[in-house]
Amino acid sequence: MADVGTAKTAMPAISPLAGEPIKRADAERLAGVLKAFADPARLRLLSLIQSAPEGEASVSDLTAPLGLSQPTVSHHLRILTEAGLLEREKRGVWAYYRLVPSAIAAIADLLTPPRKRATKKAR
Amino acid sequence: MADVGTAKTAMPAISPLAGEPIKRADAERLAGVLKAFADPARLRLLSLIQSAPEGEASVSDLTAPLGLSQPTVSHHLRILTEAGLLEREKRGVWAYYRLVPSAIAAIADLLTPPRKRATKKAR
Repeated sequence: MADVGTAKTAMPAISPLAGEPIKRADAERLAGVLKAFADPARLRLLSLIQSAPEGEASVSDLTAPLGLSQPTVSHHLRILTEAGLLEREKRGVWAYYRLVPSAIAAIADLLTPPRKRATKKAR
Repeated sequence: MADVGTAKTAMPAISPLAGEPIKRADAERLAGVLKAFADPARLRLLSLIQSAPEGEASVSDLTAPLGLSQPTVSHHLRILTEAGLLEREKRGVWAYYRLVPSAIAAIADLLTPPRKRATKKAR
């Protein structure tokens, strides 16, 4: 039993926008992480945790502002943790969640188009 | 009948990571665009178009490298165009697709965590 949640989804090293076709396996891994992001409740969860005073929150902090039940919030937190976007730390009877900025920044980097493509026919 | 495809999905102005909770409507809009990204075939399509010699491709350029039928490729291209990630230009009998780097960069920006959060207890 681990007290601290760990990412189960490995991030592809190669951006789909790097200028050469990505492999099917890399596309599947990146799509998996993006699916964790691509949900309104999970985006609001990330936003609420990011906005919390110490940058962390427990399930019970999140149910009221989201208007969702505790099992539903726990379900979304588990998906985000398994995607590596949140880390979970158990202290006493409560588990606290915080963002993993490096994992989120890695996704943002993979989706950043190379500058040479920003202007057509740059060369 | 428009020859050039236009984005139907408005991008939220506020990042979920900006430090205050995003509104439900903004979360729903951003989730909609992220869902367009969050599919292995569509990530490969974006990557193939980005890698094409002039940064553009027609449906018939894309079926063989993806190993998907023409209707399936067209379906994915439509989703990406409606999300504003691709633009479509009809020339003669063919439609050509290219990335919209500004739209993709906007998504990457929304997912970029503020630097102050990158180190815990920075202040």
